[in-house]
Amino acid sequence: MNKNLSLLVDLYELTMAQGYLYYKKDHLATFDLFVRKMPCNRSYLVAAGLEDALDYIKNLRFDSKDLRYLKKSNIFSEEFLAYLKNFRFKGEVWAVPEGTIFFANEPIIRVTGPIIEAQIIESLLLNTVSLQTMIASKASRVVTAARGREVYDFSLRRTHGSDAGLKVGRAAYLAGFSGTSNVLAGKLYGIPVVGTMAHSFVMSFKYEIDSFLAYSNIFPRKTILLVDTYDTKKGIQNAIRLGLYLKERGYRLLGVRLDGGDIVALSKLARRMFDRTGLGYVKIFASGNLDEFRIKHLLSAGAKIDSFGVGTNMGTSSDAPYLDVVYKISEVSDQKDNFLPTMKFSPGKITYPGRKQVFRVVGRNKRCVKDIIGLDQEGIKGEALLKKVFDKGRVIYRAPDLEKIRRTVKDNLRRFPQPLREVYCRDKYDVEISPGLKKLQRDLTWQLANRQ
Amino acid sequence: MNKNLSLLVDLYELTMAQGYLYYKKDHLATFDLFVRKMPCNRSYLVAAGLEDALDYIKNLRFDSKDLRYLKKSNIFSEEFLAYLKNFRFKGEVWAVPEGTIFFANEPIIRVTGPIIEAQIIESLLLNTVSLQTMIASKASRVVTAARGREVYDFSLRRTHGSDAGLKVGRAAYLAGFSGTSNVLAGKLYGIPVVGTMAHSFVMSFKYEIDSFLAYSNIFPRKTILLVDTYDTKKGIQNAIRLGLYLKERGYRLLGVRLDGGDIVALSKLARRMFDRTGLGYVKIFASGNLDEFRIKHLLSAGAKIDSFGVGTNMGTSSDAPYLDVVYKISEVSDQKDNFLPTMKFSPGKITYPGRKQVFRVVGRNKRCVKDIIGLDQEGIKGEALLKKVFDKGRVIYRAPDLEKIRRTVKDNLRRFPQPLREVYCRDKYDVEISPGLKKLQRDLTWQLANRQ
Repeated sequence: MNKNLSLLVDLYELTMAQGYLYYKKDHLATFDLFVRKMPCNRSYLVAAGLEDALDYIKNLRFDSKDLRYLKKSNIFSEEFLAYLKNFRFKGEVWAVPEGTIFFANEPIIRVTGPIIEAQIIESLLLNTVSLQTMIASKASRVVTAARGREVYDFSLRRTHGSDAGLKVGRAAYLAGFSGTSNVLAGKLYGIPVVGTMAHSFVMSFKYEIDSFLAYSNIFPRKTILLVDTYDTKKGIQNAIRLGLYLKERGYRLLGVRLDGGDIVALSKLARRMFDRTGLGYVKIFASGNLDEFRIKHLLSAGAKIDSFGVGTNMGTSSDAPYLDVVYKISEVSDQKDNFLPTMKFSPGKITYPGRKQVFRVVGRNKRCVKDIIGLDQEGIKGEALLKKVFDKGRVIYRAPDLEKIRRTVKDNLRRFPQPLREVYCRDKYDVEISPGLKKLQRDLTWQLANRQ
Repeated sequence: MNKNLSLLVDLYELTMAQGYLYYKKDHLATFDLFVRKMPCNRSYLVAAGLEDALDYIKNLRFDSKDLRYLKKSNIFSEEFLAYLKNFRFKGEVWAVPEGTIFFANEPIIRVTGPIIEAQIIESLLLNTVSLQTMIASKASRVVTAARGREVYDFSLRRTHGSDAGLKVGRAAYLAGFSGTSNVLAGKLYGIPVVGTMAHSFVMSFKYEIDSFLAYSNIFPRKTILLVDTYDTKKGIQNAIRLGLYLKERGYRLLGVRLDGGDIVALSKLARRMFDRTGLGYVKIFASGNLDEFRIKHLLSAGAKIDSFGVGTNMGTSSDAPYLDVVYKISEVSDQKDNFLPTMKFSPGKITYPGRKQVFRVVGRNKRCVKDIIGLDQEGIKGEALLKKVFDKGRVIYRAPDLEKIRRTVKDNLRRFPQPLREVYCRDKYDVEISPGLKKLQRDLTWQLANRQ
C-alpha cells in the first residue's frame, strides 16, 4: 500500500548513523527486539508482522527526494548522504515465525550486522511488529472467549488510521477471527469479507419491513437483518415475517443482528421466537462494544449468539493499546569482528547481554513446559524459537500463507496449559534465564561499572 | 502516502449502496458525524483530520482492479459495478474547521447528498477524522500540562502503524507540540524535526565519554547527551566535561536527556551541577513514559525540565485509545427532494433528527459561554461552527496551513473557561439542545413509533 516509507524514521537513527559512519564504520552489532513487560490482561503474546517487517528491510532505499530533504535540514554531511544513497541492509536477521506464542523478555527478532544498518531500521521495525503483535494477541483472547463461535473484525472505522485498518484485519484473522468487514483487507490478504446492514439503511425507508424486504430482494441468500433500530422485539417480529416470506420463495434468512441493549435477554427471545416459527436456522449475530470480557459474560449468562462482530476494542487493543516493545543493543564488535557483549543499566530497564536464543522446553505430546532465554552457543535442549530469516541482503524466510499461520496459532496455543489461555488468567508461564546468560550479566555488571 | 484506498470500506457500505441503487436512486440524505460520548479524562475535543478527509472524498474512485475484485465476490450486480465505475462524490459537506474546540453530540461534519454517495464514504471518513481528532485532543492536554515548556512527539515506534505514525506527528503539532522525531512527518507537513541519541549509541563505545565526544564532534551545535545508560550522576559529570570542552572550542552543549529514574531529583541535581560549572545554558530534556498527568506531577514537584519528549501515551492516546465517533443519518428525502427528518431509537443510542448547526454563544472578549445544537434554519444567535467545505464535487474549504491551525487552536482554547482546560478537570462545558430540535425530536418519537 504504502509508497516510500524510508524517511518514516526517528531523526536520531540518522544522526547516530552519521556518528557510526565516522567512528564505527567497520563495527558490527547485534540488537534484540523484545517486549519488556507483559501488557495488562495478557498471559501470552502472538508474534505477527514479520512478513511486513522483512519486506521493509529488504526494500529500504533512500531516493533522491529523501536525500534532498535531508540535505536541506543542514544536519548531515555530504559523505553521509552519499552513504545513504547506496544504502542497502546487508545484515542477518533471526526471528520467531509469525504465529509463535511468546512472552516478556524473549527476543522475537535479532539483528546482527553493521551497526549503522542495524540502527537505521529500528523505528519502523518496532512500529510494524508491535502493531500486528498487539492486535493478534488481543484477537486471540477474543477467539478464546467465543468458545468456537465465529468472530469477525468490524473495527475499520475506529482503528488508528488506514494502515492499522488493514493490518488489524490481517492480525485478527491470523489469530483465529473468521473474517473482516474490511474489503481491502479481504482483497490484499485473501480474508473472507462479511457485512450486514446499518441503521441508516433501515431508517432510509418509511417502514422497517420495507427496508428488510428491499435488502432481501437484492441479497436473498445473504441477508442479515439489523433489528434494533426502533423497538427490538418488533424488529424481530418483522424479521420473522421476512424470514417466512423468504422461505416461501425457497430462500433462507441468514440471520439477524443485535447491536446493543440487553443482548442476553434479546438473544434468548429472538432464538425462541425463530425456533417457534420454524426458522430455527436463522442465526443471531451480536455486535456493539464487544471484547473478550463481554463475550465471556454474555455466553456465561446463556446468551444465544452464533457469531460476534468485534470492532473498536479489538482493533485498538483498548485495554492495552500499546506494547512495551524495544530494540536494544546486546553486543558490539571491534574492527576485527570480535563481538563483545553489552548491556544497559538504566534503573528498571536493565537488559540481557550477548547473542541470545529462546529455547522452548517441551514435554509429552509436545506440551510446552517452560522457556529458557539463553546464549546462542549454550545449546540448551528445547525448540530454538529464533530462526534465520534474512541473510546477505535477501529474505530467506518462506512466509507461510495466512491460512497456515492461522492454523499454527491454533495448534501452538493448544500446547500451552489451559489456565494460561483463560480470559481471566492468573497463571504465569515459566520463562527462565539460563545459567550462562546469568553469569554473563553478572560478569558484565562488574566490567561495565568502569565505563564511566 | 497511500495509494488507492477506495476499497478500505466496510462491506456493508457497498451492499447497502447496491440496495440504494435499486430503491433509493434519486433520494437524498443528510448524515452527521459526531462523538457520542466524551472519552474519559477529556473535557474538550480538538477537531482535526478534515483536510485528509476532504482529499479522500474528492479523489474516491473505483478502478478496474477494485471492480474486478468486487465482481469475483459474486455479491454485486453488473448494474451496481457500472455505477461504481463512474462513481464520484457530488454531495455537499459542511464541517468545523480543523482546530475547532468541540464537545459530545455536536456534528463536526455534515454530509448532504445522494444517499448512496453519502453512505459509501462512511468508513474511511470516520477512520480519518477520529484518529487525528483523538490525538489532537490528547496532545492539547499534554501541551497544557507542560505550562509553556516545549513538548516533542517521540511516538513513531509505538503508533498503530505507519499511517498513524504520520498523522500523530501532524495532529500533535497542530495541538501545540513543538516538533516531532518523525522525519517523514517533518518532510510532509513542514514540522520541525528533532532528535537526541539512543542508549545503543552510548553502548557502542567502550567509555560513555567517548560516545559523547564522538557525537559532539559531528554535531557540535546540536548535541543532546543521553546521560542515563549507566549511572546517571556520573553521566551528568561526563556531560559537564563534554560541555566544558565544547565551550573551550566556542560551542554550547545544547542539553542532556533523562529517560527514566527519579526525574525530579535527577533534573534538580543536573540543573545545580550545570549551573555551578558555568553551563547554565544547558537544557534538560525528559522522556520515558510521559503523559499530561506525569508532566503535571513532575512540574508540581519542582522538576527542572526545559523540554519533554512524549511518545507512546500521546501517540496512542493510551488512556482513551478511541473516540466514540459515529456517522448517523438525520434526514432523508423523497424523490422530489422533500427532506424528512429521521432518528434512531436504539436504547442508549437515540440520535437528533434534522439538518443541524452548532451555535457557539459568545460573551465579552469573545469568551465562549455555551453551545447550542439547533436546527439549521432556527438561526440561533452565536457563531455557526459548521461551514460549507465541499460542494458540487469540489473542495471549497481553503485549508489553512498547519502553522495557522496551530495558532487557531491556541487562540480558541483561551476563549474557554480556565477550569475546563485543567488536566484534572471536573467542569463541563454547557451544550444545550435548542427548543426547535427538542420539539422535532419529540414529534418524531410519536410519528416513528409507527414505522414498525
